[in-house]
Amino acid sequence: MGVLVVGSVALDSIHTPHGVVQDALGGSASYFSLAARHFTPVQVVAVVGEDFPPASLALLRRCGVDTGGLAVQPGRTFRWTGEYGADLGYARTLATELNVFAGFHPALSGEQRRARTLFLANIDPELQLEVLDQAERPRLAACDTMNYWIDSKREVLLEVLRRVDVCLLNDAEARQLSGEAQLPRAARVLLEMGMKRLVIKKGEHGALYFSHDDRFFCPAFPHEQLVDPTGAGDSFAGGFLGYLDREGDAAAPPFRQAMVCGTAMASLCVEAFSPQRLAEATRSEIAERVRAVRALAHVPEIELWK
Amino acid sequence: MGVLVVGSVALDSIHTPHGVVQDALGGSASYFSLAARHFTPVQVVAVVGEDFPPASLALLRRCGVDTGGLAVQPGRTFRWTGEYGADLGYARTLATELNVFAGFHPALSGEQRRARTLFLANIDPELQLEVLDQAERPRLAACDTMNYWIDSKREVLLEVLRRVDVCLLNDAEARQLSGEAQLPRAARVLLEMGMKRLVIKKGEHGALYFSHDDRFFCPAFPHEQLVDPTGAGDSFAGGFLGYLDREGDAAAPPFRQAMVCGTAMASLCVEAFSPQRLAEATRSEIAERVRAVRALAHVPEIELWK
Repeated sequence: MGVLVVGSVALDSIHTPHGVVQDALGGSASYFSLAARHFTPVQVVAVVGEDFPPASLALLRRCGVDTGGLAVQPGRTFRWTGEYGADLGYARTLATELNVFAGFHPALSGEQRRARTLFLANIDPELQLEVLDQAERPRLAACDTMNYWIDSKREVLLEVLRRVDVCLLNDAEARQLSGEAQLPRAARVLLEMGMKRLVIKKGEHGALYFSHDDRFFCPAFPHEQLVDPTGAGDSFAGGFLGYLDREGDAAAPPFRQAMVCGTAMASLCVEAFSPQRLAEATRSEIAERVRAVRALAHVPEIELWK
Repeated sequence: MGVLVVGSVALDSIHTPHGVVQDALGGSASYFSLAARHFTPVQVVAVVGEDFPPASLALLRRCGVDTGGLAVQPGRTFRWTGEYGADLGYARTLATELNVFAGFHPALSGEQRRARTLFLANIDPELQLEVLDQAERPRLAACDTMNYWIDSKREVLLEVLRRVDVCLLNDAEARQLSGEAQLPRAARVLLEMGMKRLVIKKGEHGALYFSHDDRFFCPAFPHEQLVDPTGAGDSFAGGFLGYLDREGDAAAPPFRQAMVCGTAMASLCVEAFSPQRLAEATRSEIAERVRAVRALAHVPEIELWK
């Protein structure tokens, strides 16, 4: 039951115009699970080194994340160093140390294989395939990726993207993968390539949803004080899949509402460094943010010509 | 009664990856009036040269635009030449010939002074002030501008922007005028500078509305085949103000619905070169596009924790 995420648990060092953090809890699986756990039970499959701070492990557990699948291996934890410019747009990677993550091969337990919802966070698409092969027909499987895999492992990645139910990409990735500059055309091409549903994340410009029978636009929450955008995409995925998992086995999954929940969790995430806000947020704060995002684009009835 | 627009009527030569047009009907007042006239009566105040094609004048009149304020002066009509790259983003100006527009000073007739709604299209802010001084308390006045005036006539422009009820800017102009890179902060700064309501147009990313008591996001219609973006901003203004004019003297003007009507008209405009689609569109096409834009961001009720 619940959501299973396979991805990275990392130590991030981040430079923004608002400050710096060093070796803070990061990684796609951390952000995802700390967002999704507000909606539904979450299990993490990832690997860390022996240097992984006990306080970070304690934080995940205190937040109710099932860390039974978080392997500790000899060596150092995956580390990422990045910086953002004044507009807090996309991160510039200063350093990546894979460390124990270099030898990661996810092996799922029986319970993990039976997870109702599966999120393949941004890892090598060959590992994403290994997970899909182990999973026992999740009700919904989704995956993320990055430019590096689009360049280096395009064919394997395309196989993964065709097998999952929802592909989460950012705008640059959608353009790169489709070869189309305009996003509505990019989406059409990706659906024709065999993807079933697309979420295209555009940062401050919101997120788009495309399937063969629907198109939906969700605005971003208009922050006046963005602190650290790291993890926004994985927090989105956590809110999105967490909500879908919780809402049961509906024949028509509530994708629009899930986009709003994803947007709300991403908007909380970026208010502080690391997943701090995801760890601290209360149900009433989340409900209020979900309400605010939904209200942003609400339009009363329009009467034109009677 | 109705809307009065003061702006340019021009002959445009436009290069896009989809083709080229030469000396086609253009100018802010043309696009605005051909969009707004679907909703409410429109009068144009502008100037053209003796070379202005009779067919273009006939088009405006056939569409019901009141061209009584379109002066014909000795000399050539204002001409603009621009080109768009593969992504059909912002235009690159190749040539501007002001011609008779260089000596333009709008003089409003009695009927024009009493227009219920006033749109100051992108012209010299000193001329915009001249119009505001002649107008007799319109119910709603709005204005547009461009980077050139922000650079060269900032103080006069700020006086105009403070006097009107709604300022329409694109994202780059909002950043330039406010000195803030993030749009929600830019909007806050502009409201603090004395503007009453802001519409920030972001092209394919939609449009934002900010006032002291509301924030609204309207998505763009996701075109798969954008032909020519010229005039999209003025078409937006035409749909926006046309709808507001038609909806009577409500104490709470329906700005959200007006944003949807503006978006719908802009999306029709960009489907062909010049204002051709604005001239041809039927009420049922417009109603269908308004419905489609409104549906794009509609979110059913979200139940979180009972």
